[in-house]
Amino acid sequence: MLATLLESNEEKPPYTEFTYRRNEVIMEEGTDNKHFYVVKKGMVAMSKGTIRDDSILTFCGPNDILGFLSILENAVSPISYTAISEVTLLRFDRQYVIDKLTFGQESFWYAYFFYLNFTQPILIRESLSNLPSDKKILAGLVIVAERFGRAEPDGSYLIPYYFTQKVIGKYLNLARAYVATNLRKLEQDGLISLSPKPWKIHDMAAVKEMLNMKYTDLYSLTKK
Amino acid sequence: MLATLLESNEEKPPYTEFTYRRNEVIMEEGTDNKHFYVVKKGMVAMSKGTIRDDSILTFCGPNDILGFLSILENAVSPISYTAISEVTLLRFDRQYVIDKLTFGQESFWYAYFFYLNFTQPILIRESLSNLPSDKKILAGLVIVAERFGRAEPDGSYLIPYYFTQKVIGKYLNLARAYVATNLRKLEQDGLISLSPKPWKIHDMAAVKEMLNMKYTDLYSLTKK
Repeated sequence: MLATLLESNEEKPPYTEFTYRRNEVIMEEGTDNKHFYVVKKGMVAMSKGTIRDDSILTFCGPNDILGFLSILENAVSPISYTAISEVTLLRFDRQYVIDKLTFGQESFWYAYFFYLNFTQPILIRESLSNLPSDKKILAGLVIVAERFGRAEPDGSYLIPYYFTQKVIGKYLNLARAYVATNLRKLEQDGLISLSPKPWKIHDMAAVKEMLNMKYTDLYSLTKK
Repeated sequence: MLATLLESNEEKPPYTEFTYRRNEVIMEEGTDNKHFYVVKKGMVAMSKGTIRDDSILTFCGPNDILGFLSILENAVSPISYTAISEVTLLRFDRQYVIDKLTFGQESFWYAYFFYLNFTQPILIRESLSNLPSDKKILAGLVIVAERFGRAEPDGSYLIPYYFTQKVIGKYLNLARAYVATNLRKLEQDGLISLSPKPWKIHDMAAVKEMLNMKYTDLYSLTKK
């Protein structure tokens, strides 16, 4: 999709580059949105406001698209996007993107694949609903590690530093102090290490087996 | 979208009608799906498996479409659909639907509007995350009443009988007994009545005001 957006007959590329500091709001729930963003670098949290903290539904990393939920004329964004690391975005004009995407045979599939990519992580998060808190936190770490972490040759995974206790708490709707307690418990159980940073899941395969949640099957929407 | 699907040059309509009993599974998470369904009558719960009960993400009523998440070749459904009332569905062949929808200028918008209709109720549900249980249950009742209930001239709303304690519990990830206790509390507080059935929200406007959740704004994705 990005390749399609960048194809241009004009000399000037059809986007502007913006950078955001950590914790800066990129798009606020309930506000107008006339743009479309592609993440070039960094990590963005997509969240919904609640009576307390925002609830993070999913994360958007490099090549992910922001603003798809509000591409209609007069649309207001039903969700917020917040930078959780330093972030660089390419900003496109909404009408430019609509003209590009709705033209041609592939247009249905652009919308459809965006929709699958967006929906799938939200469904996986939902499958954690009834887990006890320590396992829920471990499963949350597995999800972010698989999507955005670094696999090491020994089977461990490193978790990027911007997935803090606070971010994990908002993602799983758990209080930060509670996340802290459970992280220490998981470390005592020998499943993760918290220091030296970054956090590490020691044996990804064993943890996934233990949680019995078949993430890999869930990530792919078709049979192998 | 339904009108497009029903347009056919053949004499035989391109669908088969099926009925399901209450609690019958229509499509099971993790299984093949070669069909597309349109709800003709009744109510369907879309849910994701967890270690305990399924977690209901949203409900699908008349004219809603089932199976959009698994229209690809070899796709398995990432979610389950279960009848929560007696349900009549029109079943279409997957390839027939894809051919119809991906042809022509509107195809991007078919996918897009399906996506908005599907996503919006899930986002609204997410906004309830951090509410205390009694308010969360009241807000859950407001959501199902607004989408599927009957508005009475006196400002009250009747809630269809198939939104039982069990269904509401699965929708809000609360134990059934806990739902029962809180429903009685809401009745004692004079906000709802449980008998005679159907359940009733006495003053919808006042309840929405009290919850301060601007549902109406959230349902519409554009400014008035």
